[in-house]
Amino acid sequence: MRPIITLLTDFGYDSYFVPSMKGVILSLNPDAVIIDITHAIPPFNIYKAAFTLWASYKYFPRGTVHVVVIDPGVGTSRRAIAIKTRNYYFVGPDNGVLMMAAEDDGIIEVRAIESREFMRPVISSTFHGRDIFAPVAAYLSLGLDISMLGPRVTDPVKLPGISSKVSRGVADSRIIYIDHFGNAYTGVREGDLGTRP
Amino acid sequence: MRPIITLLTDFGYDSYFVPSMKGVILSLNPDAVIIDITHAIPPFNIYKAAFTLWASYKYFPRGTVHVVVIDPGVGTSRRAIAIKTRNYYFVGPDNGVLMMAAEDDGIIEVRAIESREFMRPVISSTFHGRDIFAPVAAYLSLGLDISMLGPRVTDPVKLPGISSKVSRGVADSRIIYIDHFGNAYTGVREGDLGTRP
Amino acid sequence: MRPIITLLTDFGYDSYFVPSMKGVILSLNPDAVIIDITHAIPPFNIYKAAFTLWASYKYFPRGTVHVVVIDPGVGTSRRAIAIKTRNYYFVGPDNGVLMMAAEDDGIIEVRAIESREFMRPVISSTFHGRDIFAPVAAYLSLGLDISMLGPRVTDPVKLPGISSKVSRGVADSRIIYIDHFGNAYTGVREGDLGTRP
Repeated sequence: MRPIITLLTDFGYDSYFVPSMKGVILSLNPDAVIIDITHAIPPFNIYKAAFTLWASYKYFPRGTVHVVVIDPGVGTSRRAIAIKTRNYYFVGPDNGVLMMAAEDDGIIEVRAIESREFMRPVISSTFHGRDIFAPVAAYLSLGLDISMLGPRVTDPVKLPGISSKVSRGVADSRIIYIDHFGNAYTGVREGDLGTRP
Repeated sequence: MRPIITLLTDFGYDSYFVPSMKGVILSLNPDAVIIDITHAIPPFNIYKAAFTLWASYKYFPRGTVHVVVIDPGVGTSRRAIAIKTRNYYFVGPDNGVLMMAAEDDGIIEVRAIESREFMRPVISSTFHGRDIFAPVAAYLSLGLDISMLGPRVTDPVKLPGISSKVSRGVADSRIIYIDHFGNAYTGVREGDLGTRP
Repeated sequence: MRPIITLLTDFGYDSYFVPSMKGVILSLNPDAVIIDITHAIPPFNIYKAAFTLWASYKYFPRGTVHVVVIDPGVGTSRRAIAIKTRNYYFVGPDNGVLMMAAEDDGIIEVRAIESREFMRPVISSTFHGRDIFAPVAAYLSLGLDISMLGPRVTDPVKLPGISSKVSRGVADSRIIYIDHFGNAYTGVREGDLGTRP
């Protein structure tokens, strides 16, 4: 079965960024099937990206590697991480963008990406999507054990404020996504207000 | 030969809708090759979608499954249909969007999609693209006989007004499409005004 | 290994142009993997396309066929060309759009595309992407020798003004690209101003 790698970025559809990542992936794993989640996330909008990932990741076959590059901290000391969950792998910056989906699926292990041997030889200070995340995803799709990437991470960054607070039958949330047709989505999930009547 | 499934929607490129459909398809048929026709049809513009499908469907290999989700009637009692033509399959809502291409290729059989076994177990009231059309397309690409989907349909909805009316050498049509470069397309076809001089 | 064909056009994401090209390619070579570089080049902007190709071509596996259709001269007597470089093939109109990348990789041979047997039987006067460039790319991906396409070209059109002029440690260039995040790119390359200190 051909391994699937999905890409979710704020790179837009008009640049050389996304195809460069695809070229790197296919150079390492020619059998990979690459699927775009979207590249139209507004620049640096981690919330919208986290929601979009959460809303789509679970429809892909078991073993799919989901790569997210919404990375306002690129070039700083923010960590790069890979997460193994019950059914998937998630790869991206440690800024919380992966966690809504990863926690939903059930996290098994989080690793910092530090081993240079799974990155491109020269690493740009601004384009870790191509030089770190794409090759790491390709290696994971080839069967690399996640523990080879680097040390275990016990405190991955989480996004504040996505979950709703519920008390006395009132759910306090906010609108976290407005879709193409104008529908607004809150952080309230089925079950937050009790079982259906 | 890998089976091809094309997708044509008004979902845009910024949402979780399209990748969710792709995940569902690949989960059922990992060998499917998924090609985007476009997802930038203006919301609910059935005419533009019908023209775009008609202008591109015939360049794909025989056996390709074309899925169209322009579906203003989702959640109402509009039927979902699958059409077998001389060379292709077409899947989508029964609102006329498939018929310009399907009639062009030559319709063999139209079926209502009713068998729950070829849909996802839980069906959203607003997202039949993911829960009905994507899995049906995947099963057709796996070789499912179209007659398994549901009863024969003898009165599929047609779009009024796309064909031109010709009399005394005058073709009466309307502009049905304006392309990216500003070219306007009418419903007049080669031959409507007689053979070329 | 599955052959890769990339597409770079100014056709936008809303039309039937790009999927028609993909259908033609898959009809001739069902094993081809088609990757979009971008289709959001502003209409006829040869410079932006040349830069985008140059910035991404080299990340793809050896043997990839890169097709570019930015073609303001379609329907005139401008030539169609195919270029074999050290690692890739490039296919497109002879207007300079291929040369920045092709010269970067090292040109081995340039051929005019003239043999009708590698084109579609009927050739539109406005859509050579579908009727000439897509089928030629498919045949090259199947192993066609470039010399079969037509006579050798010794004077391919080059884009003026992309390279920087350097004198007395001053590089004279212009901004040739502004990316999605607002970063501006000049024609000055590493090395133009001497080795790094």
